Amino acid sequence: MSAAEQKIHPHATGLAAKTVEAHQEPQDLVFYSGWFCPYVQRTWITLEERGIPYQYVEVNPYKKEKHFLAINPKGLVPAIEYKGKALYESLILCEFLEDAYPDQSPHVLPEDPFERAYVRLWVDHVAKQIVPGFMRTVQAQDPEKQREYLVEFNKALLTLAEKVKGPYFLGDRFSLVDVALAPWVVRDYIIKEHRGYSREAVGGGWKEYAEQLESRESVRKTQSDREHYTEIYARYLKDEAQSEAAKAIRAGRPF
Amino acid sequence: MSAAEQKIHPHATGLAAKTVEAHQEPQDLVFYSGWFCPYVQRTWITLEERGIPYQYVEVNPYKKEKHFLAINPKGLVPAIEYKGKALYESLILCEFLEDAYPDQSPHVLPEDPFERAYVRLWVDHVAKQIVPGFMRTVQAQDPEKQREYLVEFNKALLTLAEKVKGPYFLGDRFSLVDVALAPWVVRDYIIKEHRGYSREAVGGGWKEYAEQLESRESVRKTQSDREHYTEIYARYLKDEAQSEAAKAIRAGRPF
Ligand SMILES: N[C@@H](CCC(=O)N[C@@H](CS)C(=O)NCC(=O)O)C(=O)O
Ligand SMILES: N[C@@H](CCC(=O)N[C@@H](CS)C(=O)NCC(=O)O)C(=O)O
Repeated sequence: MSAAEQKIHPHATGLAAKTVEAHQEPQDLVFYSGWFCPYVQRTWITLEERGIPYQYVEVNPYKKEKHFLAINPKGLVPAIEYKGKALYESLILCEFLEDAYPDQSPHVLPEDPFERAYVRLWVDHVAKQIVPGFMRTVQAQDPEKQREYLVEFNKALLTLAEKVKGPYFLGDRFSLVDVALAPWVVRDYIIKEHRGYSREAVGGGWKEYAEQLESRESVRKTQSDREHYTEIYARYLKDEAQSEAAKAIRAGRPF
Repeated sequence: MSAAEQKIHPHATGLAAKTVEAHQEPQDLVFYSGWFCPYVQRTWITLEERGIPYQYVEVNPYKKEKHFLAINPKGLVPAIEYKGKALYESLILCEFLEDAYPDQSPHVLPEDPFERAYVRLWVDHVAKQIVPGFMRTVQAQDPEKQREYLVEFNKALLTLAEKVKGPYFLGDRFSLVDVALAPWVVRDYIIKEHRGYSREAVGGGWKEYAEQLESRESVRKTQSDREHYTEIYARYLKDEAQSEAAKAIRAGRPF
């Protein structure tokens, strides 16, 4: 971990700052967040979508502070404490919120077993193809590699776009596929500005779907001002980031 | 895909052959399997553990036959058809079996939301650290790399071993962590014979836990004769395998 990562902006800004302010009271569920983190945003969107009471606690995960390592030994945000017990991993947290708050509507997983599995299949596509594809495109330095990874990334987006019923992945219903993906949609301006990406070029209705995701209230409410994300991505774009994810992408390892 | 992969032994042997024989009748759930496949074995163990009625259908996924691509466009086993609808991905299938057969006991996921999430966290460790670590160790050709990957693999095993309550991961109860891991435990003789691995050397009670997993009835009943696995792994050990997983490991990509 490097000094640079430890000096990121200390708190949420923009609409997200208001959401943070509204969640300061102690609750059964303590949400350990980093305002800048796309994985955090998945869990945060789910909390907001489902109207679950939570207490927001800002953490700089790069500092690996003892109190936080006691909650998540991996030292990553998001993490939660629920009635004194700790959990982490963004997608597992979203599933946990489904299981632990069964009576809280709406859900991000359908009731029907087949539909649930179908949602998990496409979440898996987001986790294994789309997110690493985005990171590879951002971190690549060689222009030829940048183009190669962008083509591959666009293909992974198109594969999903072709399954979108519209406005959301499953149709009218907002689901975990949308949740898992939205944080990278709101950050795609990074590769638009620096890697030649365009939503139009993906095809298959990707642009329209992306616009639906970024205008969803829960997504907007968990979003900070662009300038502060840009600060962070500047290091990824030079492949200087020392986060666990950045290192995993470099090493060709899952994360 | 290469000619070699298409010529694997055509059906299960040993105890698994008997299990196949007992599941030939048409059922709501059709299980598309490859007898040799560790991912298949996860789903198969779950079917056997939970006593779910299923019809076993043997597929050679390397042939990418049209009828099978219609079920799983990725062309991978395991896959299922349930009342005419297709699903795939071993771990998603295990979760589906939980959701679709809620009244069928026992379950491989606990009822308690926190415990479920805890199980999913360690399944994630198996999927992201242990399985790719095994594959890397098998496929590495350079002796130094082989040693490096083995050390890393042992470390990932020890991290999990230290959490095992015994006899199984959660204690008396057999769970999805055991299911997700067992197929690689029964195949670890490959790296014992060729990469210097030993269960004892892992430490933390790994050996005792591994022995519990391999003697579980559902694991034994889904196991074929060693000689036929050895045939398949010979290609992995020379890094000549052309499976999607082998290619992903080579490219440093998730699978
Ligand atoms: N797989 C994890 C990834 C979480 C993650 O990488 N979070 C980053 C911030 S975006 C973090 O905490 N990084 C700290 C570090 O890399 O040291 C999840 O889905 O929750
Ligand atoms: N992630 C998949 C992996 C399944 C897999 O790789 N299956 C192999 C056999 S062990 C397969 O069907 N390979 C065909 C191929 O690689 O073309 C799962 O968990 O189900």
